[in-house]
Amino acid sequence: MEALFATENTRKLIPEIKDFLQKEIYPLENTESLTGKFSNIAPILDQKRELVKKSGLWGLQFGEKDGGLGLSLCEFGQVSEVLATTPFGHYVFNCQAPDIGNMELIHRYASEQIKSKFLHPLMQGNIRSCFSMTEPEFAGSNPVNLGTTAVKEGDHYVINGHKWFTSSADGASFAVVMAVTNPDAAPHKRASQIIVPTNTEGFKLIRNISIMGESSDHWASHAEVSYENCRVPATNLIGEEGAGFMLAQERLGPGRIHHCMRWIGISERCLDLLCKRAVSREMGDGTFLGEKQMVQFWIAESRAEIDAARLMVLRTADNIDKFGASTVRNQISAIKFFCAKVMLDVIDRAIQVHGALGITDDTPLSFWYRHERGARIYDGADEVHKSSLAKSILKDYGLSGKK
Amino acid sequence: MEALFATENTRKLIPEIKDFLQKEIYPLENTESLTGKFSNIAPILDQKRELVKKSGLWGLQFGEKDGGLGLSLCEFGQVSEVLATTPFGHYVFNCQAPDIGNMELIHRYASEQIKSKFLHPLMQGNIRSCFSMTEPEFAGSNPVNLGTTAVKEGDHYVINGHKWFTSSADGASFAVVMAVTNPDAAPHKRASQIIVPTNTEGFKLIRNISIMGESSDHWASHAEVSYENCRVPATNLIGEEGAGFMLAQERLGPGRIHHCMRWIGISERCLDLLCKRAVSREMGDGTFLGEKQMVQFWIAESRAEIDAARLMVLRTADNIDKFGASTVRNQISAIKFFCAKVMLDVIDRAIQVHGALGITDDTPLSFWYRHERGARIYDGADEVHKSSLAKSILKDYGLSGKK
Amino acid sequence: MEALFATENTRKLIPEIKDFLQKEIYPLENTESLTGKFSNIAPILDQKRELVKKSGLWGLQFGEKDGGLGLSLCEFGQVSEVLATTPFGHYVFNCQAPDIGNMELIHRYASEQIKSKFLHPLMQGNIRSCFSMTEPEFAGSNPVNLGTTAVKEGDHYVINGHKWFTSSADGASFAVVMAVTNPDAAPHKRASQIIVPTNTEGFKLIRNISIMGESSDHWASHAEVSYENCRVPATNLIGEEGAGFMLAQERLGPGRIHHCMRWIGISERCLDLLCKRAVSREMGDGTFLGEKQMVQFWIAESRAEIDAARLMVLRTADNIDKFGASTVRNQISAIKFFCAKVMLDVIDRAIQVHGALGITDDTPLSFWYRHERGARIYDGADEVHKSSLAKSILKDYGLSGKK
Amino acid sequence: MEALFATENTRKLIPEIKDFLQKEIYPLENTESLTGKFSNIAPILDQKRELVKKSGLWGLQFGEKDGGLGLSLCEFGQVSEVLATTPFGHYVFNCQAPDIGNMELIHRYASEQIKSKFLHPLMQGNIRSCFSMTEPEFAGSNPVNLGTTAVKEGDHYVINGHKWFTSSADGASFAVVMAVTNPDAAPHKRASQIIVPTNTEGFKLIRNISIMGESSDHWASHAEVSYENCRVPATNLIGEEGAGFMLAQERLGPGRIHHCMRWIGISERCLDLLCKRAVSREMGDGTFLGEKQMVQFWIAESRAEIDAARLMVLRTADNIDKFGASTVRNQISAIKFFCAKVMLDVIDRAIQVHGALGITDDTPLSFWYRHERGARIYDGADEVHKSSLAKSILKDYGLSGKK
Repeated sequence: MEALFATENTRKLIPEIKDFLQKEIYPLENTESLTGKFSNIAPILDQKRELVKKSGLWGLQFGEKDGGLGLSLCEFGQVSEVLATTPFGHYVFNCQAPDIGNMELIHRYASEQIKSKFLHPLMQGNIRSCFSMTEPEFAGSNPVNLGTTAVKEGDHYVINGHKWFTSSADGASFAVVMAVTNPDAAPHKRASQIIVPTNTEGFKLIRNISIMGESSDHWASHAEVSYENCRVPATNLIGEEGAGFMLAQERLGPGRIHHCMRWIGISERCLDLLCKRAVSREMGDGTFLGEKQMVQFWIAESRAEIDAARLMVLRTADNIDKFGASTVRNQISAIKFFCAKVMLDVIDRAIQVHGALGITDDTPLSFWYRHERGARIYDGADEVHKSSLAKSILKDYGLSGKK
Repeated sequence: MEALFATENTRKLIPEIKDFLQKEIYPLENTESLTGKFSNIAPILDQKRELVKKSGLWGLQFGEKDGGLGLSLCEFGQVSEVLATTPFGHYVFNCQAPDIGNMELIHRYASEQIKSKFLHPLMQGNIRSCFSMTEPEFAGSNPVNLGTTAVKEGDHYVINGHKWFTSSADGASFAVVMAVTNPDAAPHKRASQIIVPTNTEGFKLIRNISIMGESSDHWASHAEVSYENCRVPATNLIGEEGAGFMLAQERLGPGRIHHCMRWIGISERCLDLLCKRAVSREMGDGTFLGEKQMVQFWIAESRAEIDAARLMVLRTADNIDKFGASTVRNQISAIKFFCAKVMLDVIDRAIQVHGALGITDDTPLSFWYRHERGARIYDGADEVHKSSLAKSILKDYGLSGKK
Repeated sequence: MEALFATENTRKLIPEIKDFLQKEIYPLENTESLTGKFSNIAPILDQKRELVKKSGLWGLQFGEKDGGLGLSLCEFGQVSEVLATTPFGHYVFNCQAPDIGNMELIHRYASEQIKSKFLHPLMQGNIRSCFSMTEPEFAGSNPVNLGTTAVKEGDHYVINGHKWFTSSADGASFAVVMAVTNPDAAPHKRASQIIVPTNTEGFKLIRNISIMGESSDHWASHAEVSYENCRVPATNLIGEEGAGFMLAQERLGPGRIHHCMRWIGISERCLDLLCKRAVSREMGDGTFLGEKQMVQFWIAESRAEIDAARLMVLRTADNIDKFGASTVRNQISAIKFFCAKVMLDVIDRAIQVHGALGITDDTPLSFWYRHERGARIYDGADEVHKSSLAKSILKDYGLSGKK
Repeated sequence: MEALFATENTRKLIPEIKDFLQKEIYPLENTESLTGKFSNIAPILDQKRELVKKSGLWGLQFGEKDGGLGLSLCEFGQVSEVLATTPFGHYVFNCQAPDIGNMELIHRYASEQIKSKFLHPLMQGNIRSCFSMTEPEFAGSNPVNLGTTAVKEGDHYVINGHKWFTSSADGASFAVVMAVTNPDAAPHKRASQIIVPTNTEGFKLIRNISIMGESSDHWASHAEVSYENCRVPATNLIGEEGAGFMLAQERLGPGRIHHCMRWIGISERCLDLLCKRAVSREMGDGTFLGEKQMVQFWIAESRAEIDAARLMVLRTADNIDKFGASTVRNQISAIKFFCAKVMLDVIDRAIQVHGALGITDDTPLSFWYRHERGARIYDGADEVHKSSLAKSILKDYGLSGKK
């Protein structure tokens, strides 16, 4: 817990959540739960959700009038870090992506009718949702390029397209789909976000994409999806027509805070595992791994880098709380690539210190090694964020290059 | 192919093997074969083995009198590189670890009786074997520490112990087990290598260890094994009593050449995939990924590093051929950590250039990302080899430190 | 300026100091001043000191009753960053090491008599001082090992020893010397800090050590010094006998904040130079350096890393202000190696972007490249701080190793 | 000495040269010679040149009919490595750049008259020369851009232009100048190389550029030069009009071998110094620096990387000997950036292991740290070579991008 950003809320909540996780969730981590289909562990996790509700910790991200705590982004970031110390934390607290982003968007921009139909069961954890943006044929680094279309026909949109990395689609009740509604508008005004219930005719889950050795299912799925003449009511539109990118940006600002804090939580847990290993592994000559200079350096570097990452992210969250996401675009770009690197380095060091054990699935290290490699790719690859940040800086120096 | 080390043999063999792999094996790479149990693909691979035999490419590693080509280590290294460009290459050519090492050892050090019983069917690819050295309770960096014992009782050894990372144990006909036979000898003279048929009473495969998300089976298994009063004929001893470490060292010298050349083959394939992606992925603005400066740098750095790695390994192999493994211990240490790093860096760059596709199992990149992380750990971790090399150098400068 | 730590003081002071530096000091940076003896530029800098006094910016580090502003460490750190954007900033504002540390120590621990004799002229900038700790024969990583002795004879100490890296000794009026006074005490209680006027008989400046191509002189000297039967009044002792290490520690805590903030100032200036070059260097084809992806990445990474470094240091300074240096020893270790790395990386990138110009002395980049390489060595090498931080962490996990 | 490329010549020469250097040249390395003007040490080095002549080692790079040994490039590379282990080696053996390149070019492409006037005294070491290509106003990465012109007027060329980094101009007898003679030709056919004696009217040495803290002089100078209506006989043209770039390329191929082997020699010496320090620096507790794991890792990594670099360069040299420079353009690009990085890393590690001593001028480490930072910049920056190599590779994959 970083004292600089501690509040009454975090001082109360974080120890409670930590206790809950250590007592109820950490013990669920084992080879089976870390490698099998998510549907195997989901029923147990759903039981844990009931315990969360009972303990009054449900709905951490909701506003006070929605039964939540009205946490600021900076506060919620600190909660999110703790939840991330186990692969199951966010799900159990119903704060998991992409649902949390969908809840937020629908909460802000959808009609009451839509809210009662889609938002409320989502907030209760009774249904799940997915977000359908990325397309295999188009480079993710250029989000303006979209092949999926939504054509207005009377009171409906008719949607056609091909998506992948539609995370959590398997078993979801609805998708929020990004589709071109206004092909003749300026590039950033062409797309809209529309709710498509997954039981709509023409919605087809082609496959749960196998990622890093596992296709998984349920919430842990990443689906390839096709939309063939999917007809949904025009009222399923979120916000305005053509606002798709603006909404995506709005989602991505806090979304990146969530990601980064999650990565910091993972990093902390990996460093904790690394240290535990360092003090317990005897080298056959009476000394311990932790006495090796290289192991010490990895610990020290990890400690410094994680602290740096956390300060960067919480500062950014704090600024979003105070001034809005649009004022800290550069900071958001910076934390995205900075934190992803820190996490992947810490995971790698923790594996190396664990030796052969580190590549087994007897610890969560391998899970994170596999599942978090994507951190440098999704939500804008490192390369996109670095160029974007630099161009913004150089613009102030007068550069107006094209590349 | 590095002209410096090309021979008549390699100039003839390597194009043939490349052709075979591209025609027969590369097409077998798909999500299923790259993620499922090995037993699913094994029957098809066994058919391909018959094609190899027909094409006269079987037994590349054998001496001429055993029906092989009598390749030098340096020549075989170059063959091994090509085989490694697909995850199935070595298996199809019956050059896969640990069988190749077991064949070599038994060939050199076992009696004719043992050879006819275990070696000949191995050379035919009719049976498989495993190598049982690592123990979960003892640090691999200090191989003198072993808990497994083999006590002589009359004409038999009675073996007790607990091993893991006994690679390929699932379905193997026999294990070569490292066990302490002479507990009172000097530390490096305590252990022996003994053949234990897996149907021996007391041999128990506890589990195929789940590694990086997969437990797999068959040749691709890494087993936890227990030996409880396993009784085997004393004639199953390979070499002499107490020679276990010497044999392990002898195995590891060429074994590390094999590993390193395999890693170079993987690196070459990943660079090839990277380049193909670079010239085919359009960025939405008419330019291609390969026009990005960073992608170019990754290609250039990978090209230089792979070339450097190959020269290092083939030089070492050539020296082993000429002067024996004991004269190039330092070079062997150097290539172990140098090549592992090159490979992991190239894999990582290739994934990044593939974007979201790179973390799916639609290419072999994810397979290698997961399965080759161990390269920095097994057969002596980076840290062990670096310290060992440095101490050897500093000894010449007069240092006689303890650590 | 980091909003998180901005105060009324910093909001007022920093723009004023920036203006002063840009108007009065930056123009003094040229090949001659950046490479010649410091005594060449010192007279001009001394004139600038008078301007500082006139502008009311003198004595930034002093308490209010000493005519200063009573800045907190966190505030002064932010000032120090700005001063460091030019190699002459600290000197012109009389905040230069080692004088600032000596002032602080004498202020806290010396008698009024000593203060009036040594402190007041130092605060006026009328004299200079040096700090004499490091010895060539003893590893700096083990400060308990000292060869210099101070033997009490009546009312005097008689000092004998051999020091080097006694920074700023050339022309200094006195040295603060670390010497063993109590050889039989516990290792950390053996040494004391004693003031030795440089005109004391037996004090000999052997040479200004040539560092990175230059021996320089005056404040910019790093001297090798011998003490041969140097006799000084016992009242020249700072604090108590045996308190030398405690005082050194006390000095080093804030001292490291000063160093780190200085490094951040250097980093900011180098990034500024890098960006200016990026937008002005045309590549011969109508594009600018800043359009190159690699240059953009260097800018982005530098921006992120400098921000991270600053947050880390100001947080630490803030904690020292609130809780004292002893509570944040780990944070102090972390910033020392973290910030040194950030600075050296940024300097190196800036040089590379400047091409041939970057290695000339036509910009301050070469000055910093040469003079700041020592950042990873002095005041505790990277290796010392990393091990120290890790051991402190592992102690909480129960490790009590010796190494 | 790499056995793979050892020949009768190298087996004989290299020990002789090593002995000579250790006996005659290493003892000249001291603070003064490593930091002062080159003209201070030059008279002593010129005496050593006489010893070289007496010992029959003069003219190593010449053909047999010119009194040399007719070494292949691969052999000379190995000699060059040894010479580079001290900053004075190449000068003492008259193999120093840029003279060696000028000798080579004039030898191949100039008339007998020019040879007797300029080449023969150069080969005797009686005069020195310089090479005048780089211009401050034009990006070095685009060598086609040149501002300097040579206009034919009757039997003369009249040259006007502004150059810098004209290495060794101070005291040189003549410059080889790159100037545009055919402004209307295709970009790569516009420039020519012309000999301009430095006593020609209009040739002006503006300054010895201060580089990394030193302007030096004599052979160690890097001059800014202006040509104002310099009139030289048209027969001073080297090769044909418009052949300037072709000649520059021809010079750069072997020139890069020379550079790379020089860097490897420097690396070897730094590693040697590092190891000597590691075994001699006691840490105050009875252990030595060389027992620290990190120091061991630096030694091991340096050993591996230097070996890799040497194999890469000698392979390339060997290929140039066998097939010509044009066939190995990719290999030449690769060694340029690969070896520069290896050297700079090794220098940096050696400095760190030396601690405070490492940044003084009491060892040659600081000299190389300062003077070899340019290795990543001159003769084509890292960035240029990496892109060039990658584009050549991607061309084979079908990419025809513009960038």
